[in-house]
Amino acid sequence: MEVALMQAKKSCPFIHVTSTSTLKRLSNNASSGNGLLRKAQQCPVMSQAMGQQARPLSTSSIAAQTPTKTVKAEVKPTPVSHHSKSKHFDYEAFYQHELEKKHQDKSYRYFNNINRLAQKFPRAHTARVEDEVTVWCANDYLGMGRNPVLTETMKRTLDRYGAGAGGTRNIAGNADLHLRLESELADLHHKEGALVFSSCYVANDATLSTVAGKLPGCVIFSDALNHASMIQGVRHSGAQKKIFRHNDMAHLEELLQSVDPSVPKIIAFESVYSMCGSIGPIREIVDLAKKYGAITFLDEVHAVGMYGPRGAGVAEHLDYDLNAAQPTMGNGSVLDEIDIITGTLGKAYGVVGGYIAGSALFVDMVRSYAPGFIFTTSLPPAVVSGALESVKYLKESTVEREMQQINTRDVKSRLGELGIPVVPNPSHIVPVLLGDAAAAKLASDELLSEHGIYVQSINYPTVPRGEERLRITPTPGHNGKMIDHLVDSLERIWDRYDFKRVNDWVEQGGCAGVGVENAVPPTPMWTDKQLGLDKVIEERAVRSGTSVV
Amino acid sequence: MEVALMQAKKSCPFIHVTSTSTLKRLSNNASSGNGLLRKAQQCPVMSQAMGQQARPLSTSSIAAQTPTKTVKAEVKPTPVSHHSKSKHFDYEAFYQHELEKKHQDKSYRYFNNINRLAQKFPRAHTARVEDEVTVWCANDYLGMGRNPVLTETMKRTLDRYGAGAGGTRNIAGNADLHLRLESELADLHHKEGALVFSSCYVANDATLSTVAGKLPGCVIFSDALNHASMIQGVRHSGAQKKIFRHNDMAHLEELLQSVDPSVPKIIAFESVYSMCGSIGPIREIVDLAKKYGAITFLDEVHAVGMYGPRGAGVAEHLDYDLNAAQPTMGNGSVLDEIDIITGTLGKAYGVVGGYIAGSALFVDMVRSYAPGFIFTTSLPPAVVSGALESVKYLKESTVEREMQQINTRDVKSRLGELGIPVVPNPSHIVPVLLGDAAAAKLASDELLSEHGIYVQSINYPTVPRGEERLRITPTPGHNGKMIDHLVDSLERIWDRYDFKRVNDWVEQGGCAGVGVENAVPPTPMWTDKQLGLDKVIEERAVRSGTSVV
Repeated sequence: MEVALMQAKKSCPFIHVTSTSTLKRLSNNASSGNGLLRKAQQCPVMSQAMGQQARPLSTSSIAAQTPTKTVKAEVKPTPVSHHSKSKHFDYEAFYQHELEKKHQDKSYRYFNNINRLAQKFPRAHTARVEDEVTVWCANDYLGMGRNPVLTETMKRTLDRYGAGAGGTRNIAGNADLHLRLESELADLHHKEGALVFSSCYVANDATLSTVAGKLPGCVIFSDALNHASMIQGVRHSGAQKKIFRHNDMAHLEELLQSVDPSVPKIIAFESVYSMCGSIGPIREIVDLAKKYGAITFLDEVHAVGMYGPRGAGVAEHLDYDLNAAQPTMGNGSVLDEIDIITGTLGKAYGVVGGYIAGSALFVDMVRSYAPGFIFTTSLPPAVVSGALESVKYLKESTVEREMQQINTRDVKSRLGELGIPVVPNPSHIVPVLLGDAAAAKLASDELLSEHGIYVQSINYPTVPRGEERLRITPTPGHNGKMIDHLVDSLERIWDRYDFKRVNDWVEQGGCAGVGVENAVPPTPMWTDKQLGLDKVIEERAVRSGTSVV
Repeated sequence: MEVALMQAKKSCPFIHVTSTSTLKRLSNNASSGNGLLRKAQQCPVMSQAMGQQARPLSTSSIAAQTPTKTVKAEVKPTPVSHHSKSKHFDYEAFYQHELEKKHQDKSYRYFNNINRLAQKFPRAHTARVEDEVTVWCANDYLGMGRNPVLTETMKRTLDRYGAGAGGTRNIAGNADLHLRLESELADLHHKEGALVFSSCYVANDATLSTVAGKLPGCVIFSDALNHASMIQGVRHSGAQKKIFRHNDMAHLEELLQSVDPSVPKIIAFESVYSMCGSIGPIREIVDLAKKYGAITFLDEVHAVGMYGPRGAGVAEHLDYDLNAAQPTMGNGSVLDEIDIITGTLGKAYGVVGGYIAGSALFVDMVRSYAPGFIFTTSLPPAVVSGALESVKYLKESTVEREMQQINTRDVKSRLGELGIPVVPNPSHIVPVLLGDAAAAKLASDELLSEHGIYVQSINYPTVPRGEERLRITPTPGHNGKMIDHLVDSLERIWDRYDFKRVNDWVEQGGCAGVGVENAVPPTPMWTDKQLGLDKVIEERAVRSGTSVV
């Protein structure tokens, strides 16, 4: 057994961090029918090493490794668990059945082991410290997570205020840092107040469910591509929901018209939609909201820090010059007209947590009534201080977001030249279309194993079936060499497997906006002028081949 | 205006951290009807300074200050907001109306500004850095938040892996640290797998709603005092719910009998109930679950780190000697029999985050289906490394939990001698009964302002009306002098305001377990033998007056 364990530890990224005593315990634990051997048979990697067909039925940790190839799921009879008396429900069999469904429809997820290295951004090591890859799909969009302005502040805060908040906001967990962060965020978004949550998932869920649940007879108008957190919030509110086709203003107006003018209404939508990179028509939605007596709920999660002169998001970006000249509430910009903005501290701001911003009364009502805010430990002081520094830093510094856009344009145009299909959009997201779950996974796996590039494949249910893709997120930290290597690697993979190019999609009548005849290419949200493009391109040529941040 | 602003900044803990430009903007912003003057009139502190009756209708940040006394709420007509055309719904008026309700029933919350000082645990500074108080109500139960084992590890992790995870667990946010923490937690609770969430609020909500929502026809049996997160999870699952009277096994069995044996059932309950300190009858519930074919869902949030030989919680504590001798799954302890355990990394473990532990298939199903797990940024590497170190540390070190229990016994017995009413319980929670919302708030405010002691008052809806209390949580960091000062201060306040003592409650027939005739006093969960009590008391006498940790 000792030798077998030693060998297993070498070949499995999960086992090598598990103590020998735990492994022994697992392998000896015959009574529950879950010995190590059975686990190994369930593992897509180990089972192959053991020379037999695997049934992939893994623990969360085993599922967290990188499988070398897709494994065929096979439904077998469930062993009877200790719960199962004949008349009782068999829970374990049920869980297994639910997991088999995921395997069958190829939506079962294997987590890659990715350890992003602060000193080598955007590089990461995988399960083995010596194996490094370039990360091309993280949401640390601007590399702020490794900015010493954040990390040094966080280290000082750890020394001064310790590791955790120690309580809910109401009981011992409300510090000056939390108040200062909320004040900073309110100012950023031209709102009277802001409120910080564990995450923006929680912020969206708690806010929508609380507010729509309270407003009498409220009807929610929700964009068809809204994020899961908003969908859950709407569902939990119990309010009536009307879904409008993605960014379709005529459809939204039609739905708004169908509801009595005096009924409270919320229009919930996003600025940047993260999986396709499209951008919501904020100004048009605000106009419709006013016309029909609705309030607007705008999720700027994939835009804060990255759009607008101070990083307040797309709503701020729409009046770029005005907001740059007069960055305060009451300047008449469309930003002022949004009722509720939600954002994250965990993507471009580089830390973790979410927030809402809105009128003082609105924020106070959510503060007073939302269980997801009230009954949870508040964010640690160090997290809050890091986020605060990040928001302040990106109010001033624009080079990070500009270089992100430059690199995005570069990647998009290079792929376009090769006919590798990119879902057209005006934002910083580069969705490379595969249109098939197995193909997307194969491309992702091969990028990782053969080319040292990590781009997660995005499959159903995150995107519709037939629109599977690689979602690439260029950052200011990706240099010219990295871009060359990414583009070359994709080209090789497209060649090797003969994956569909733009022309193939044209022949099929288009897919996810790729290969659509007579389509007008979207104008980038950041204009050439805003990017000072000529100047920057010149600078980049001088620095060619080196990291710009 | 300048002078007025300077004066305001001196007298208000919120304003003094706000920039002058922001204040100017607020005071000049007449168009929205929310000028600084109006805000000041809404503030319970400032309005009094301005010599006029206040309508306390605050922004979240203004509400975050410490009011000097309770302010009478007064409903006034709402100014018409810019949204309000005659036929449209008036949202701002609605928010205001909802807040007025909170003021009217005294459940409106004013957050205290508490900044817990790592180097002076359990001391904190308030809004002014020079004003320090002793914190007696935090959930950093063991002072782990300032333990260098955590903070130094976290600082190293910040340097190595940066401030944030950079993605969801599926996309770039799954690191070795996350896998190691989950492996450690699974081992702690004698389970095959574990899964980490943003918080235990999210863990409870996401897990219950996903699992109970999927199990066909599932019925949930929920203890009447279950935490809000479980209540939300049950609600969001859409499953049928049957609430059993708190810790009432006869009632639970009666309800279980009423449901068909083949129907899937979940019994959801807690080990330590945080507001009264009672402990769930785990062994009896496990027996009932087996008898009726239910699975058990045990929330150990207020017990992990603090009970059991390795800090796995009350379920581990019930077989203390067995688990101390043989701390592994399969040892026949009741801990092994619990199907699902949930816990937090934000209380005794001192950081933030939550988790579940259970069978491999169960954990994998939640991992694969729960939106609250899937669609959110994962916990930052530094948070995970801190939590990992904390869990490992408290698996070995018992002095922290032992001293917590010793101090708890001390506080309870000292208050008992003075007839100050403590809700009887076998745990580390010291709920001091006031039985009136205004009285509880007054006691809390006076402890803070006059005695330098911070204990938050707990009012409806967290506890039933008429059972309002101060919830005191002794830690290993509270020394003899601090305990003396706490007890003396409470005695003075009870004298000054003639608050009810145990005898008064006896006359009234008892309340919340206080003053109940012929009641059997609960046996502490930690026995004298487990605490090595004689030895420790001797040691404390030697070290008297000094911090023990």
